[in-house]
Order: sequence, then structure tokens, then C-alpha cells
Amino acid sequence: MTKVDSIFNGKEKKIYSTAEDPSKVIICFKDVVTAYGNIKRATFKGKGALCCSISSVLFSELNKEGIPTHFIERHSEKEQLCHRISLIPLNFVIRNIAAGSMAERLGLESGMKLANPVVDILYNCDDLGDPYINEDETVALGIVTRDEIQLMRRTALRVNEVLTKVFAAAGITLVDFKMEFGRAEGGKVIVSDEISPDTCRLWDETTGKCLDKDLFRHDGGNIIEAYTEVEKRLNTLHI
Amino acid sequence: MTKVDSIFNGKEKKIYSTAEDPSKVIICFKDVVTAYGNIKRATFKGKGALCCSISSVLFSELNKEGIPTHFIERHSEKEQLCHRISLIPLNFVIRNIAAGSMAERLGLESGMKLANPVVDILYNCDDLGDPYINEDETVALGIVTRDEIQLMRRTALRVNEVLTKVFAAAGITLVDFKMEFGRAEGGKVIVSDEISPDTCRLWDETTGKCLDKDLFRHDGGNIIEAYTEVEKRLNTLHI
Repeated sequence: MTKVDSIFNGKEKKIYSTAEDPSKVIICFKDVVTAYGNIKRATFKGKGALCCSISSVLFSELNKEGIPTHFIERHSEKEQLCHRISLIPLNFVIRNIAAGSMAERLGLESGMKLANPVVDILYNCDDLGDPYINEDETVALGIVTRDEIQLMRRTALRVNEVLTKVFAAAGITLVDFKMEFGRAEGGKVIVSDEISPDTCRLWDETTGKCLDKDLFRHDGGNIIEAYTEVEKRLNTLHI
Repeated sequence: MTKVDSIFNGKEKKIYSTAEDPSKVIICFKDVVTAYGNIKRATFKGKGALCCSISSVLFSELNKEGIPTHFIERHSEKEQLCHRISLIPLNFVIRNIAAGSMAERLGLESGMKLANPVVDILYNCDDLGDPYINEDETVALGIVTRDEIQLMRRTALRVNEVLTKVFAAAGITLVDFKMEFGRAEGGKVIVSDEISPDTCRLWDETTGKCLDKDLFRHDGGNIIEAYTEVEKRLNTLHI
């Protein structure tokens, strides 16, 4: 596949159309990391390649489990070949342990194991500060149909099951993670975007050490070292 | 029934045990109105009696429709005889038209008809500012069981259907309203609290004039006049 035009230039990824197939795109992972709605921003050499590698491993696992995703294959160090989708402006946050905004909002201690996984939905809209939205509201606003939101919720919980097992095998606790969906050709709703230490909370199972973007959010250390550790452990699984 | 001890003294209501039956209470509606989490507060002579009257009419309708509620009968001008419950700390907000916090949060024009009713849930906790909570979270935190939250959601939508019809017959649009649930003796989940212009958004069907507590929130006029109008119209229905 050959890159042609850039069709989207985001904060952390750039997307190109391909010469061969209008239904396929090449996604390039940048070395940029942002937080707090793009207020905090930095470049870490090698971050794009690490996220591309980790996300490729995780999406391969989802594909193997029969979960429909946009991911086809890793194309180069920092690039993936994916099905072209139109993005659905909802962020799904699936939580196994209270942390971050949920702990703050509901007055919970960070690290509290939740009795069941929680699916939070955010309306992906910078101008509004990505507010909470519930399933009824996603349908009332015409963002998705009732069937689609129910499918997305079931899929999010299934993705959580798969990823929790993959990370556990690597000695990592999946605290929470964000995922997005898009509509592929024909309208089918599939998992899109990336799943990486940029979009997950990952804690070392033994030491509790943070291995994700919270290190950048809270000036807590070298994200390249942590992301490299995650990549190494996932690749050692030979999954 | 005879009032004995005050067992709860809230911002807008006071609850008494009864001499005859430990499972029944008398709820007294105060003339106090509060807004913005008790920051704005005032007294309107006659408001307690109006809310007691309106809430009695509406809860009678719910009882007639077979929806389990705490309401038994109106006991005096400002008092109701009710089943004693332990309160479940969740506020359900059912919306037919975008207004208030939902319109603000999701960037919608106030007055936009929603394609389907929306059930928002708030965690009733003054210290946290009554934050949003979703169904998964209510279960994960042990506030309710999965069966209970599903029952509460179905009941909230049924209550909305009944009240929308009652208000429509009175020439009033039910924009949105808040409701609460409690556990009665034996653990059964029933509708509790009050439903009145203090807890609803009510707009005159023809003129769009506000007939609810927003008048107090936004210094928009005489709430007694508006509440009296609502009471008069509901009582003219002879329902």
C-alpha cells in the first residue's frame, strides 16, 4: 500500500489515503503526547513507534477474538494499515479499578477494585470539554441508534475481558482504558483509534508502578522507559 | 395517625414517626425553597401547602396506575401520610426536552425536543456536588443491585409517561423532572420524595411561560402565583 494524501492531521496521529484502495488508510503515530485537552504537550522521540507497536499487538488480539476492528496490519515502525472509518464522536472509558476522573467525581480512593466493570461514555467535543453523556442521550442526539449503542457497550465489555487477560499475562493490571468506534464501509460499527499506554491506565501487577501516560500528566518520570517496558512484556508473550 | 418524633429535618421537608404504625411516617412540606445546592434560599408563605397538594395529586395518579410509591394520603394542608422508607441516594432526572444542566453540558439549545426521553442519574451527595453517576457505577459502588437499577430506570420512564399525560391534560408541558426512590419494609424499591414545581420543569403549553422553580433560580417572578396556577389546573382535571 502506498500513502497518498493526508486526510486527517490530529494531535497524535496523521492519516493518509492509499493509492490502491479507497476503503483503506495508513495511520501514522506521532511522537507527540498531549494531556488535559491539549493544554500540556510534549514530544518524546520513539513514542510513536512504541504506541504503534503496542496498539498493533492489542488490536491483533481483538481481531483474533473475532471482535471487528479497523486494524489490518502494522505497515512500518510508526504506521498501521487500517480500514477507513467515519469516527463516532464518543469516547468509551472502561474501568476495572477506580482512578482518575471517576475516583475524583465519586469521592473514591484511587486503586479501589470495582465490583463490576464500569463503562463511562464521553461526548468527544473539545469545545464542551468532552462531557459525560449517557446512552439515552447518545440516541436522543442522533449520534447512534439504540441498537448501535447497545452493541458498542457489549463490545467495550468484551474488549475489556480480552485486554485484561493479555495484560495480566504480562504482569500488568489494566486499571482502565479509553476506546473509540467508527463506521466502516456499509455502516458497520467497528473498534477504531488506538489502545496503548497513551489511552490506558496500566499498573505493574507486583509493584503497582505506573506504566502509562499518567507519568506525563503528573510529571512522574520517563514515559519512554515505561512504554518500552510494556512493549517488551507484551512481545515476550509470543501471543 | 398522630405525629410523634421528628426523625428527619431536611431543607424543604420534615419527617415525623407516627404513634400508631412504625412503618408509616408523616411528611411536612416547609415553605422554604432552595437552589444551587442550598446556596440560594428563601421562604414563600404557602409554598409548602401548594407542593403538598400538587405532589399528592401526582402521586395519587401514580398509585392509580399501579406504580409502587411511598404515598398513602394527604394528611393535612401541608402534610402527607407515607410509607417509611430508607432513601436510596440517587436522583433520577427524566428529560423530554433539553433544558438546564443537560442543555449546558451537551451544548444544546434549551427547548429542543428530544427524540426519546433521557434518564440521567445523579449521586445524591452534597459534598461531591451531586455528580453524574451511571448505572454500572451505581452497582459497582454497592448502592443498588443490577436488578434494582434496571427496575428504577423502567419505573422512571413509566412515571414520565403517566405525568406527561396528566400535565398535558392541564395544558402544561413536562420538560423534565427529578424523582427519588427508597426501600420500604422488606426491601421493596418504591417511588419516594415529592414531585412538584420544586422538582419539575413545567412550561405552559401555549405561551411557554415557566411555571416552576426556575422562576426562583433565575429571579423570574412570583413562584406562589405560578405554583397556584399549576395546582388550580391539576385540580380542575377532576382526575
